[in-house]
Amino acid sequence: GCGTADPEAEQKEAEDNVVAAEEKKEPEVIKPHQGLNQEPTPIKIERVGENEVNVEMTAQITDIEIAPGEFYKAWTFNGEVPGPLVVVEEGDVINFTLKNMDPAIPHSMDFHAVHTAPSKGFANVEPDETGTFTYPANNPGVFMYHCGTNPTLSHIANGMHGTIIVKPKDGYPTDDLVDREYVLIQNEWYDYNDLEDFTYGEPNYVVFSTKALKDGDRNTNGDTFTLKDEPLLAKVGERVRIYVNNVGPNEVSSFHVVGTVFEDVYIDGNPYNHMKGMQTVQLPASGGAVVEFVVTEVGSYPFVTHQFEHAQMGASGILKVTET
Amino acid sequence: GCGTADPEAEQKEAEDNVVAAEEKKEPEVIKPHQGLNQEPTPIKIERVGENEVNVEMTAQITDIEIAPGEFYKAWTFNGEVPGPLVVVEEGDVINFTLKNMDPAIPHSMDFHAVHTAPSKGFANVEPDETGTFTYPANNPGVFMYHCGTNPTLSHIANGMHGTIIVKPKDGYPTDDLVDREYVLIQNEWYDYNDLEDFTYGEPNYVVFSTKALKDGDRNTNGDTFTLKDEPLLAKVGERVRIYVNNVGPNEVSSFHVVGTVFEDVYIDGNPYNHMKGMQTVQLPASGGAVVEFVVTEVGSYPFVTHQFEHAQMGASGILKVTET
Amino acid sequence: GCGTADPEAEQKEAEDNVVAAEEKKEPEVIKPHQGLNQEPTPIKIERVGENEVNVEMTAQITDIEIAPGEFYKAWTFNGEVPGPLVVVEEGDVINFTLKNMDPAIPHSMDFHAVHTAPSKGFANVEPDETGTFTYPANNPGVFMYHCGTNPTLSHIANGMHGTIIVKPKDGYPTDDLVDREYVLIQNEWYDYNDLEDFTYGEPNYVVFSTKALKDGDRNTNGDTFTLKDEPLLAKVGERVRIYVNNVGPNEVSSFHVVGTVFEDVYIDGNPYNHMKGMQTVQLPASGGAVVEFVVTEVGSYPFVTHQFEHAQMGASGILKVTET
Ligand SMILES: [Cu+2]
Ligand SMILES: [Cu+2]
Ligand SMILES: [Cu+2]
Ligand SMILES: [Cu+2]
Ligand SMILES: [Cu+2]
Ligand SMILES: [Cu+2]
Ligand code: NA
Ligand code: NA
Ligand code: NA
Ligand code: NA
Ligand code: NA
Ligand code: NA
Ligand SMILES: [Zn+2]
Ligand SMILES: [Zn+2]
Ligand SMILES: [Zn+2]
Ligand SMILES: [Zn+2]
Ligand SMILES: [Zn+2]
Ligand SMILES: [Zn+2]
Ligand SMILES: [Zn+2]
Ligand SMILES: [Zn+2]
Ligand SMILES: [Zn+2]
Repeated sequence: GCGTADPEAEQKEAEDNVVAAEEKKEPEVIKPHQGLNQEPTPIKIERVGENEVNVEMTAQITDIEIAPGEFYKAWTFNGEVPGPLVVVEEGDVINFTLKNMDPAIPHSMDFHAVHTAPSKGFANVEPDETGTFTYPANNPGVFMYHCGTNPTLSHIANGMHGTIIVKPKDGYPTDDLVDREYVLIQNEWYDYNDLEDFTYGEPNYVVFSTKALKDGDRNTNGDTFTLKDEPLLAKVGERVRIYVNNVGPNEVSSFHVVGTVFEDVYIDGNPYNHMKGMQTVQLPASGGAVVEFVVTEVGSYPFVTHQFEHAQMGASGILKVTET
Repeated sequence: GCGTADPEAEQKEAEDNVVAAEEKKEPEVIKPHQGLNQEPTPIKIERVGENEVNVEMTAQITDIEIAPGEFYKAWTFNGEVPGPLVVVEEGDVINFTLKNMDPAIPHSMDFHAVHTAPSKGFANVEPDETGTFTYPANNPGVFMYHCGTNPTLSHIANGMHGTIIVKPKDGYPTDDLVDREYVLIQNEWYDYNDLEDFTYGEPNYVVFSTKALKDGDRNTNGDTFTLKDEPLLAKVGERVRIYVNNVGPNEVSSFHVVGTVFEDVYIDGNPYNHMKGMQTVQLPASGGAVVEFVVTEVGSYPFVTHQFEHAQMGASGILKVTET
Repeated sequence: GCGTADPEAEQKEAEDNVVAAEEKKEPEVIKPHQGLNQEPTPIKIERVGENEVNVEMTAQITDIEIAPGEFYKAWTFNGEVPGPLVVVEEGDVINFTLKNMDPAIPHSMDFHAVHTAPSKGFANVEPDETGTFTYPANNPGVFMYHCGTNPTLSHIANGMHGTIIVKPKDGYPTDDLVDREYVLIQNEWYDYNDLEDFTYGEPNYVVFSTKALKDGDRNTNGDTFTLKDEPLLAKVGERVRIYVNNVGPNEVSSFHVVGTVFEDVYIDGNPYNHMKGMQTVQLPASGGAVVEFVVTEVGSYPFVTHQFEHAQMGASGILKVTET
């Protein structure tokens, strides 16, 4: 019968729960990945026409230090988690190449910035194969990318996510005011390759990372310590712009920088979606924003998700402001 | 004393937890609902004046297949979960009739689209009785409705929710661009009639359904499979509009369609709340939106909540795009 | 090895879980706070110049009744949870004094409304000491404040949070329409001083409180019952404005008033961030809003977070509307 609870079944379920606690085996590194730690492969981005850019990325298995001394044999793009930043211009056609160096599992690429039929443009690339795809990026903004191979939650949670910025043709109305800009990405870490924990558990860590907008900028992985130990930097009086993206996989973000107010915010990074004077910006899972704020005094400005259980799990970092 | 932990009480609480795991009885179908499976009753919507519409709905107990082979003896409006779509015009007065065919429990109707004193306009209708109510719908948009009878969480989570669209008098600025439109509703399913799981648990399933905007459109229930097995349809090159509503009861939604970008978004479906170029729209619990996007290639476009644990629990479906 | 699961370690972890359930000791009131219940100290707010205001607050340990008969020995500002409302004008400089009457723990103040280097302007004040700070409030809106002392999650969750309103220099475009205004704050309560429950648990209660905008208005604590037993009041036909703030610490809010629609909404309380016709406003953790709505009939209008598990945990109250 529909929804009928059978008392004996219930009793058995309850006993199973107790037994389960004793017998439960955690997922581990799959056989073909054991001992594998593929050296990070640089991303290749090359402009080949006024409105055409070639992007080549690699799916690979690489150890990532997610907390001091704790490594995660991540499924990655290019050996980084989040993957390397991709920057293109509004109106570009992207010729995308995915090399799959994972010996065991197919992977794929889903750019939130493009228009394509996912069943073709975001198709699987088999182990040791290379796939090529072409699609336009016609909407400006700060977009998530991720592997979309089934089960997608496992591919994202194991590390296959990142950010693509599509620069608006006509810029942002506040471009001239900005002195310095950074990328920040929020992601979660769970029990290793554990679809049950990915689905029903809470994050073990929630973390931030930064990615290089230009030569000399840093690329960090999503971990609990790097952006606390080695802060982002700014000078007193500067207006700082942050391209922020919450790649999840599961949690929304309440992005906040302590000690300041966001003068201007562009939701999902689209210049049309202009908000002002915000203390905190709500980022849905996969959502992005451009936020701008002025740092008026010398000192340390933490950034967090103000869902403080997540800050407690690691999601904070420091912007250090020094004399000009 | 305030907040003082008594070690003996703590020890006992801990033991209780172990015992609880062994003795816990799950809620079951209440006696008067056992064996009851009331045939779906069609909703009646009749325009009776230029700005006046009669709507008649039924509270009833009906089995809903929420996952393949798994039925839930739902508390429903009209034998559907979510209930049938209601569409009225901005400025309409709604004469609403609720027939309560549930033999055991009072039910009620809370339309988020109307102005009324809830203690009167959303009052309980007792078993086997009929209530009539009148209220204006003066705000355009995509609104949730639900039973508001105490405990409201149980009435919503057991199935008594749905969507009412109030069409804007002056339309949306993008009306002329739209080729095709659908309704999508996100809802959660928990353990059967289990207020404890509704409150403290995680969803067993998160699901989408579609409802008929016009004759010939489909009405599906919120389940894990229908919109995967029998996709929504569009033609290549079309602009698709979706009226989307997250009826919860508990979770927010990060609504996203893979392979495209929302060109235009109207938060809560109000033309004034216009956003552009969004990858994902954040829907609070009960929140709605109108989203529009173009599908540029033949193939399959999944829609999800990008809170991927929920997609993994069922919250995805397919929009299939074919040649014109 | 990275992410490698050791079966014996797993077996041990599983056994530990069972043992843990039997042995777990809950945190209790720390020694120096036992028996302490400091009388609420009134906040002092004094305008000392056209654009300068002195604000003096107190960190103190005070019992708060969070549910009928259940007291929490809270870490508070001024003996209230949330702390007292602070209202200043856009462009004010705030001279802020924090007296720390807590005999044991340093505390601090982080106003989301101001610009300062947190490492200085939000610095710790040691037990029995007094700190003074000066910073400008140049952005209008509805902002959270909270203690930022490490671990911040514990200081917020134990009670050290509240709301500061910065009144916009040029007002809101709808100022002339408003008949009555209130402040509502949403916060969560967890197991007593339990950083583990703060981080990994679910709230025991989610609650609303109201704070005085002018003399004669009420100041209530965040509890499950007061705003149900003694409702907010309005007259039929009035437009009611609510300054609403979600101080968390962890959960986002889907703020909704039953029986009406928000005619005008200002996200984070900034007049620029104008939305219309919303059923529900999404508040990130720490986020604020100004919402305005008309109550058209005599009766009771509940307000809730429409994340109904939280309403079930306490987050509802009543606005009672009577004849003019
Ligand atoms: Cu993958
Ligand atoms: Cu995605
Ligand atoms: Cu009901
Ligand atoms: Cu509702
Ligand atoms: Cu404190
Ligand atoms: Cu804060
Ligand atoms: Na989860
Ligand atoms: Na976990
Ligand atoms: Na829950
Ligand atoms: Na459940
Ligand atoms: Na939690
Ligand atoms: Na708890
Ligand atoms: Zn696990
Ligand atoms: Zn969570
Ligand atoms: Zn802050
Ligand atoms: Zn249950
Ligand atoms: Zn959840
Ligand atoms: Zn996608
Ligand atoms: Zn506890
Ligand atoms: Zn929660
Ligand atoms: Zn409602």
